[in-house]
Amino acid sequence: MPTVDVALGERAYSIHIGRGLLSDPAYLPARLSGQPVAVVSNETVAPLYLQTVHESLLAAGAKPFAVILPDGEAHKNWQTLNRIFDALLKQHCERGSTLVALGGGVIGDMGGFAAACYQRGMNFIQMPTTLLAQVDASVGGKTAINHPLGKNMIGAFHQPSLVLVDIDTLATLPQREFSAGMAEVIKYGLIRDADFLHWLEANMSRLMARDEIPLAEAIYRACRHKAEIVAADERERGGRALLNLGHTFGHAIETGLGYGVWLHGEAVAAGTLMAARLSTLLGWLSTADVARIERLFAAAVLPVRAPALGAERYLQLMRHDKKIQDGRLRLILMKSLGEAVVSETASEAQIAEAIRECSQKLTTDL
Amino acid sequence: MPTVDVALGERAYSIHIGRGLLSDPAYLPARLSGQPVAVVSNETVAPLYLQTVHESLLAAGAKPFAVILPDGEAHKNWQTLNRIFDALLKQHCERGSTLVALGGGVIGDMGGFAAACYQRGMNFIQMPTTLLAQVDASVGGKTAINHPLGKNMIGAFHQPSLVLVDIDTLATLPQREFSAGMAEVIKYGLIRDADFLHWLEANMSRLMARDEIPLAEAIYRACRHKAEIVAADERERGGRALLNLGHTFGHAIETGLGYGVWLHGEAVAAGTLMAARLSTLLGWLSTADVARIERLFAAAVLPVRAPALGAERYLQLMRHDKKIQDGRLRLILMKSLGEAVVSETASEAQIAEAIRECSQKLTTDL
Repeated sequence: MPTVDVALGERAYSIHIGRGLLSDPAYLPARLSGQPVAVVSNETVAPLYLQTVHESLLAAGAKPFAVILPDGEAHKNWQTLNRIFDALLKQHCERGSTLVALGGGVIGDMGGFAAACYQRGMNFIQMPTTLLAQVDASVGGKTAINHPLGKNMIGAFHQPSLVLVDIDTLATLPQREFSAGMAEVIKYGLIRDADFLHWLEANMSRLMARDEIPLAEAIYRACRHKAEIVAADERERGGRALLNLGHTFGHAIETGLGYGVWLHGEAVAAGTLMAARLSTLLGWLSTADVARIERLFAAAVLPVRAPALGAERYLQLMRHDKKIQDGRLRLILMKSLGEAVVSETASEAQIAEAIRECSQKLTTDL
Repeated sequence: MPTVDVALGERAYSIHIGRGLLSDPAYLPARLSGQPVAVVSNETVAPLYLQTVHESLLAAGAKPFAVILPDGEAHKNWQTLNRIFDALLKQHCERGSTLVALGGGVIGDMGGFAAACYQRGMNFIQMPTTLLAQVDASVGGKTAINHPLGKNMIGAFHQPSLVLVDIDTLATLPQREFSAGMAEVIKYGLIRDADFLHWLEANMSRLMARDEIPLAEAIYRACRHKAEIVAADERERGGRALLNLGHTFGHAIETGLGYGVWLHGEAVAAGTLMAARLSTLLGWLSTADVARIERLFAAAVLPVRAPALGAERYLQLMRHDKKIQDGRLRLILMKSLGEAVVSETASEAQIAEAIRECSQKLTTDL
C-alpha cells in the first residue's frame, strides 16, 4: 500500500493511501494516545462512512463518540467550531485524547483547528473523503475557520499524527468536486514534475473514470510532492509559496463571483491558465505549452476560461490577497512546464493583458 | 539591564527587565517585521501607559493602532477575542504585522492567542504590566481564552519575539495583585532554588515596599528559572509540570469559591501550603519547613489558610482538573525546600488530611 512519510522532525507522520482503509483498524492503535476519541464529520459524510469508522475505532480499542456538523463552507465559522469544543468538554476529553476529522476540506480545516486549540493542542487524525482534501489538506497541517471579513483568516499550523486516504470514498464524490480536486493534482505536474504531467496526460481518461489503480498512483505522487515542499518550509515562509500556482488569480475569481459559485479547484484551474498566459508574455512558456495545459484541464472537465470580471476588478481583488508582502504583487509563474517560480517581474499592464486573454466574453458562462 | 534569554531554537527570544522600558524604543526595531502594529490593552492599563508605548513605537518607525478591551477575566472569551480579529482585519494587518500585548495576564493570554491564530500566526511582543504577568505569562508562550465549561480550555503555544518588563508599571499595581504575583515568585524558590528562597526571606520587606533594585533581581531570577524549565519542555509534556506546585489545590479553591473571589496567586499560596503539608505526611518536609513557607507567604501578605470547602469537595474539584492523566491524581509535592517532584504517591486519605489541616474554620474568612 503506498505510504507518504511527511518528514517534520518530532511532528513527522504518515499518509496511507489505499482501498478499504476506513474499515481497517490496523494503523489506529499506534496513533491513539488517550480516551475518548471524537469523530468530527458532517451531515453528508456521516451517513456514508461514520458507522464504518466507529467500528474500526472500537476494534482498535478506542471509545469513540461523534460530532456531526452541518455541511458546507458557510458553516466554517466560530459558531460551528464551538460545537466541537462543547462536545469535547462534555465528553471530558483531555489533552491526550484524539480528534478524527472524517470528511472533506471544511471538516479537516475545522476539526484540525479545534484539535490545535483544545487545551492548546490535542492528537489529530485525518480521514479525508474528497480528492481535494486527500491531496491538499492531508499534507501540511494548515487548519482554519473563516472570519466575516476574510476566508481562512483564523487558524493554526497543526500536524496530524496519521492520515488515512481511503480511495473507495471517491466513488461517492460528485463529479464537479472530483474535477476540482484533479486541478490540485495537475498543479504538482506543472510546478515541479514534467514527467508526472506527461503521466497525467496519458492517464486522465482512466482517472476520470475513477479507476482505482491510477487514482492511488496520482494521489500518492501529489501527496509526496506536497510533503517534500512542506518538509522544507513548514511555516510557509519560502518554497511553500509555489503551491499557490493559480491561487492569486483563483481567489480573485472566487471573491469576484461570490464564494461558492465556482469551486476552489475550478477557480485554480482558470487561474493557472492566466498564470500560464502571463508566463508566455514574459517569454518563459510557449503558446504550445499553454495549449497543453488547456487540453489537460479540459480532459479533467475543468474550466479553461475565467469569468469576465474585467481586468481592473481582477487586479483590485488580487491586491487584497493575503499573500501580498509590503504591497508588492508577487505571483507564482512558470519558467517551463514542471518549473514554477515566485516572481515580481510582471508589470500590471502584462497581468491585465493575461487576464483579458484568458477571460471569456460576458455572454458565455461556465 | 538584566536580560533573560529563552532558548527555544528558532523561537528563541529575550526578556528585558528594567525601569523605563515602555518609553525606550531601543529594543523594538529589530523585532518589528511588517506594518501596522496593533497594541492590545484594556480600559485600566491604556490610560496609564498606552500613550508612552504609542510614542516608543512611532520612534521605532512603526505605525501603531490601539485595540482597547474591557478589563477582567470575565471578558477572556471568544467575543472579546473577535474584537481583536475585527481590528486586525480592518487595519489590513498581514502575517508579518506585529501585535503588542500591553497589560496583565488576561491581555497577554488573549493578545497572544489572537496573534497565534491570526492568519495562522503573526509576530507577538509582550509588555506585561503586573508582577504575575511579568514572571509567569512572559515566559513559555501559553495563550488561551476561557470556555463556559472550563478556564483556559481554548488556546495555543505561541512564543513572543520580545518581552519588555518595565518595573515602573508595578508602582500603579494594587496591593492585592502585587502579593498574588509574589506567590509565583516564591514558587521558584520552593520548587528548585533553596538559595533564592533564602534570598526572598531576607528581602521580602524591601520587595513589598516595591524597592526597584531587589524587584528587578527577583523578577530576573523567577524568569530565568521559568525559561530554563520551558526550554527543556516547551509543550508541557514533562518537567514543566513542576510549575504547577500548589495549582491543583489552588484551582479547586478558585472553582469552589467561584472565579475571581480569590486571585489566582492567593489560591496558589494556600494550595502550596496544602502541598507542603501533604509532603510532611509523606515524610519529605519537616514541620519547621512548612512553618518557614507560611511565614514567607504571610510576609508577602498572602493567605496561609485555604477556605473550608470540605475535603470531599476539594477532592471532587481536583479530580476534574485538566492535569489528570488517565484518571490518576498527580500532584506536585516537595521532597525538600527547593526540590519539587511530580508524585502519585499520596493516597486520597492523606490528601484529605492535608486539606483539612490547611483549611480554616468556616467562621473565618480571608
